[in-house]
Amino acid sequence: MKTEIISIGDEILIGQTINTNASWMGQELAKIGIKNNRTTTISDSFEEITESLKLAESRSDFILITGGLGPTKDDITKKVLCDYFDSELVINEEVLEDIKDFFTRRKKPFLEVNRLQAMLPEKATVIRNKVGTASGMWFERNGKIFVSMPGVPYEMKYIMENGVFPKAIEHFGIAQLSHRTVLTHGIGESYLAEIIEDWENRLRENGLDMAYLPSPGLVKLRVTSTDGDNTLVDKYCEELYQLIPQYIFGEGKITLQETVAKLLVKNKKTLSLAESCTGGFASHLFTQIPGSSSFYEGSIICYSYDIKEKELNVPHDLLLEKGAVSQEVVEILSDEIRKKYKTDYSIAISGIAGPTGGTPDKPVGSVWVSVRNDKSVVSKLFNFGNNRERNITQSALSAINMLRKLILKEN
Amino acid sequence: MKTEIISIGDEILIGQTINTNASWMGQELAKIGIKNNRTTTISDSFEEITESLKLAESRSDFILITGGLGPTKDDITKKVLCDYFDSELVINEEVLEDIKDFFTRRKKPFLEVNRLQAMLPEKATVIRNKVGTASGMWFERNGKIFVSMPGVPYEMKYIMENGVFPKAIEHFGIAQLSHRTVLTHGIGESYLAEIIEDWENRLRENGLDMAYLPSPGLVKLRVTSTDGDNTLVDKYCEELYQLIPQYIFGEGKITLQETVAKLLVKNKKTLSLAESCTGGFASHLFTQIPGSSSFYEGSIICYSYDIKEKELNVPHDLLLEKGAVSQEVVEILSDEIRKKYKTDYSIAISGIAGPTGGTPDKPVGSVWVSVRNDKSVVSKLFNFGNNRERNITQSALSAINMLRKLILKEN
Repeated sequence: MKTEIISIGDEILIGQTINTNASWMGQELAKIGIKNNRTTTISDSFEEITESLKLAESRSDFILITGGLGPTKDDITKKVLCDYFDSELVINEEVLEDIKDFFTRRKKPFLEVNRLQAMLPEKATVIRNKVGTASGMWFERNGKIFVSMPGVPYEMKYIMENGVFPKAIEHFGIAQLSHRTVLTHGIGESYLAEIIEDWENRLRENGLDMAYLPSPGLVKLRVTSTDGDNTLVDKYCEELYQLIPQYIFGEGKITLQETVAKLLVKNKKTLSLAESCTGGFASHLFTQIPGSSSFYEGSIICYSYDIKEKELNVPHDLLLEKGAVSQEVVEILSDEIRKKYKTDYSIAISGIAGPTGGTPDKPVGSVWVSVRNDKSVVSKLFNFGNNRERNITQSALSAINMLRKLILKEN
Repeated sequence: MKTEIISIGDEILIGQTINTNASWMGQELAKIGIKNNRTTTISDSFEEITESLKLAESRSDFILITGGLGPTKDDITKKVLCDYFDSELVINEEVLEDIKDFFTRRKKPFLEVNRLQAMLPEKATVIRNKVGTASGMWFERNGKIFVSMPGVPYEMKYIMENGVFPKAIEHFGIAQLSHRTVLTHGIGESYLAEIIEDWENRLRENGLDMAYLPSPGLVKLRVTSTDGDNTLVDKYCEELYQLIPQYIFGEGKITLQETVAKLLVKNKKTLSLAESCTGGFASHLFTQIPGSSSFYEGSIICYSYDIKEKELNVPHDLLLEKGAVSQEVVEILSDEIRKKYKTDYSIAISGIAGPTGGTPDKPVGSVWVSVRNDKSVVSKLFNFGNNRERNITQSALSAINMLRKLILKEN
């Protein structure tokens, strides 16, 4: 069974709108075991839509179309569908009542242009839309299914969840697909690939599929079984935990900072940070999390020498002798912030984010991180690249991962 | 001339990654006068990629391909391209040096799998990638252009900006569009559209085009002339400055924080922040800027009551009486951080980011901001929405804009 999505709209093509509809649909389809094989974004033109429907019909069984269903004259998807399925527009009295209700509840006048929204192709099975005025339309031809939906995200989602998913599961008799996504930090895609090469080969020989999904500072490994059986998926994921335990921090959609937040909350511990080169970004990652005030107390962003000296007691002579990017300084920072803000754990980060400020000795991308509690301190020098933005992200994530390991070791 | 984008990757199809590459490319192409006619997302499979290349070649002149170029074996775009263009992989010594350099600078071992990244199709013109290991490949056949790039966003952007755009302008003999992008903050798209409706109508009647490009906290207005003449573009932009002076903070690609950074550097002034609900994000926006240490001294992220009291001298009784989200408290925070960190200007932000913590009196999204120097203080209450992430972004940007106005008023 082949599935594809057709997104209609110039605003997506020229980048004014990001196609989050297609990603939501792809994700939700995957959950019920339907793989999206293709997403096509096209202009709102009669020829383009017709041509795309023909191509889709020639290669796919399930075709999901969004966009081009508004009440204004530049939305022409409905006309194309009538033409394509040789169908006439007829008034749907139930939908008309829905639309009138919709305006009454919002205390807005019902306009004649809104009546057009109740004119629907006679050959379509209508999927009612209780959160807007454009209905979903389900067409069937030679066992192939076409569904047309409005492009407004919450209307599309309503129609998918309340009409399309249940009907599709029934129509296609779908068995469930199984996958797990294992999250790693601290190792690049190519190093990881070398370490797990043998595992990956055996996995593929056993009919499973896997993909590397890199994002800044992370590599996600997704293991998928296409036959609906998750025994093998579980077996290979367990093997992965044996193979690279030091790099795995979680599964699914959790972030590195969320795993640390959970550990802190679970152990009733608190956190403070002294950030230099990351300039508040590491604190931001923690405070993005709803409820972060239950473990996070505060930070000092000690960008200048002056603040390092006066607020965090780094000796002036040490700064001159060793430089701000040194093990000695970063360990004083983590110690002082922990005591000053009275927290169980602390993180300190000091480095050269770039693009300038590097020396032969300490090139751009050199970053010292120190994490500690009352019993231990762990410090480490990282060498990232030349890109300021990436250096900030990688420094923050690496520091958060060091804290994660320290907490796990001691709890 | 027809252009299309082919995005390769299962992670996009199943919604684990949102296709922001395609939207960036669509937007940047539009700026040099190239309309993206179609975006197709497909699986990383030999057949799918080949089939898509054939279809694209049959209908388009300029085909941009991203993804499937990593060093691991699930990336097969290069193999498909060799097959499609009947080409052999040969080692490119210059690229090999680039890649070795890339690893040396990061103090990481060069692996054999990385050498494969320097094996490139002999028929391709190589576009060097200085920020990663996968090169861009430019193919030409019967005047049609195919470009293959890695899917990592900053690598793709580097290759587009440094190789693809200049080459495409030359190859297709593209006349330069004339456009200006006016940046606004502090007004939503629909309100803005109402205020400038008449201006927009006249602009369109005069053959110009304009687009609203919303992003969190900002609305960008791009005015374009399609005939290469910028006289009218300038005329309408000047009118816009007359019409909405209070909302415009700059033009082009500059960010709100960069305009403030420039003002601070120009006037030789320094800045400190006391952040509560924004949790480091406002400081991060400033420290993202290369060279920010020339104006930015440091911040206190005073998340807890304790830190507000002990580090920034907010009286305990005042916190209990007025709450942390109050004009009184935020003005003490801006005053104390400015004195403590000895800076010319300061920003303080205290609010309820949500999703919980709101009261009938101060609902989620209530945020007090105070900015000051030695002569003046300006404080303001904002009411944003229910979304934590958006509240953090909007709070930080609104505070930065208040500082911008204060600096402009006094210099």
